[in-house]
Amino acid sequence: MIRIALDACGGDFGPEVTVAAAVEALRLRPDVEIILCALSDPREKPGNRAARRVSNRLLFEPCETVLDSGVGPVAAIRAGQGSSVGKAMALHADGRADACVSAGSTTALMTLGMKMLGMLPGVKRPALMSKLPSASGDTVLLDLGANLEVSAEQLVQFALMGLVVRGQDDDRAPRIGLLNVGHEDSKGHSVVREAHGRLQDLPLNYRGFIEGNDIFSGEVDIAVCDGFTGNLVLKSSEGLARMLFGALKNAMFSSWRSKLGAAMAGPALRGLVARFDPAKHNGAPLLGLDGVVVKSHGSSRVPATRQAILEACDEAGKQVPDTIRALIEQHKAEIEQ
Amino acid sequence: MIRIALDACGGDFGPEVTVAAAVEALRLRPDVEIILCALSDPREKPGNRAARRVSNRLLFEPCETVLDSGVGPVAAIRAGQGSSVGKAMALHADGRADACVSAGSTTALMTLGMKMLGMLPGVKRPALMSKLPSASGDTVLLDLGANLEVSAEQLVQFALMGLVVRGQDDDRAPRIGLLNVGHEDSKGHSVVREAHGRLQDLPLNYRGFIEGNDIFSGEVDIAVCDGFTGNLVLKSSEGLARMLFGALKNAMFSSWRSKLGAAMAGPALRGLVARFDPAKHNGAPLLGLDGVVVKSHGSSRVPATRQAILEACDEAGKQVPDTIRALIEQHKAEIEQ
Repeated sequence: MIRIALDACGGDFGPEVTVAAAVEALRLRPDVEIILCALSDPREKPGNRAARRVSNRLLFEPCETVLDSGVGPVAAIRAGQGSSVGKAMALHADGRADACVSAGSTTALMTLGMKMLGMLPGVKRPALMSKLPSASGDTVLLDLGANLEVSAEQLVQFALMGLVVRGQDDDRAPRIGLLNVGHEDSKGHSVVREAHGRLQDLPLNYRGFIEGNDIFSGEVDIAVCDGFTGNLVLKSSEGLARMLFGALKNAMFSSWRSKLGAAMAGPALRGLVARFDPAKHNGAPLLGLDGVVVKSHGSSRVPATRQAILEACDEAGKQVPDTIRALIEQHKAEIEQ
Repeated sequence: MIRIALDACGGDFGPEVTVAAAVEALRLRPDVEIILCALSDPREKPGNRAARRVSNRLLFEPCETVLDSGVGPVAAIRAGQGSSVGKAMALHADGRADACVSAGSTTALMTLGMKMLGMLPGVKRPALMSKLPSASGDTVLLDLGANLEVSAEQLVQFALMGLVVRGQDDDRAPRIGLLNVGHEDSKGHSVVREAHGRLQDLPLNYRGFIEGNDIFSGEVDIAVCDGFTGNLVLKSSEGLARMLFGALKNAMFSSWRSKLGAAMAGPALRGLVARFDPAKHNGAPLLGLDGVVVKSHGSSRVPATRQAILEACDEAGKQVPDTIRALIEQHKAEIEQ
């Protein structure tokens, strides 16, 4: 049995969404139990008939408070222990759960994770990771904002962490790229050039420097960068996709002719939108912690929240932290040089 | 008369594209002359009948070499003077042209620009700028890769440079945003926080920190960041747009039904594609030089090249370098603090 501790109160919609998502996840994964951390038992609410069908695997842990989404690191430590996210983290730290999922504040999740679970040996701070759609499937991108200024050592660690989460394809080792302003060895600042040298020394399918467009072209499976750049690349991509889909919708409803066209092309267009649905890529693990911690987007509805829970189940099943620990230990010399 | 010195040999297609683009630009702008810098006079080629109609405003300056697109800064200086881009830059430096346009190597353009035109007082290196489509029109983004590591002073200068090129709207001062990993004052590393404080002290329509998605949502008119981040945001956006338009095309041709829909919605879809056509946004000025230098994309065809020439005409007409010089001098105290 894999046990997930879920901060049921985090995010914009609270238990209404998180409990429904937990129930859906439990129906998909009969090998999973979920502990809801909430102010009052959300399983008691009327209308939760679906919940009762999986009720033997849906547990409850009471908490005293819910942290604000804008909470700072100091307040997160002070008020965090009795909060919904703090309880979920404590369950994981105590070994009563195999992973912790929250749609609350990233700062709180990171601060409490570092304090209650601790970091893996040699890792400074957690890295946030996400999957982005690409022409050949998807690309793992990290870090997304936890480490604004990084060392060459950290960039190499990000590559190894991404590798563990991405997992092996049947036919080839995942292709790793280091984001830079050009493909040539001479490009970029000293930190990326140093990381480039170290990655070349490791027994990886390292494809060298990549440019921004290579994230989406399917050139690599894992794209590595500092957290400042990664955050801006992720958020600008989300913004551009939203603008383009909005413009497409407006164009298709701009005349009777295009409306008719939209009706004819409906299934194809719905398939397109579904393929790039952000909910499918929800669930950003915080890697480098001595535990499995997954951040769900604050505005997640049921399908996105379910996806984040399933991501946590996968990572707990694959024992991601132990594998990262072993890989970093094994390649200590090349990483630190 | 505005005189543009055009590197006719730079870019992937050379005179075949650049001369046609020059002819089109001359027909649109009767107040402009263009000097073609090329190995042999491209106006003599048969089939250039259109060129003959504007021939009195299409001039020729011979050069000896063409620089490779991958040329480094040292080689650019050594071999650059007799090259097509070097000749164009020399014409501008000598005052025989009011601007220089090239689709060749950015490194060569920047190195030769710094050597032959010099920098404006107080500016360290040129900043590359581009326009990106947004929900409310377009957003100016800089720097795009010339300055990989920046100071707070440079970020403030980028904001002022962007302001000069963007120009005043009728109803309000252009809105400026500083790219960061969050909107709160406490977010980001020390350089962006310092620049944030200085921008607040200036009499600008400064909207504070913005996130990646704000580039496309139309929240600001000018988005400022370091060149490493800007380059990756620009290239990843280009890659994502290419992937999404490719997927849209595939979806519309996936069945007889969707094909019929595509035919019906044809004009609307073509309007959509035209709105986001990269050619419309071609022409990235190198700001901070004591002159008007515009980089055209290496793969530009005629419409994109024409757009880059027109951008140079606009900037020469607005006397962009002098205006930037005056603005930086006026706000020296707030910029340097």
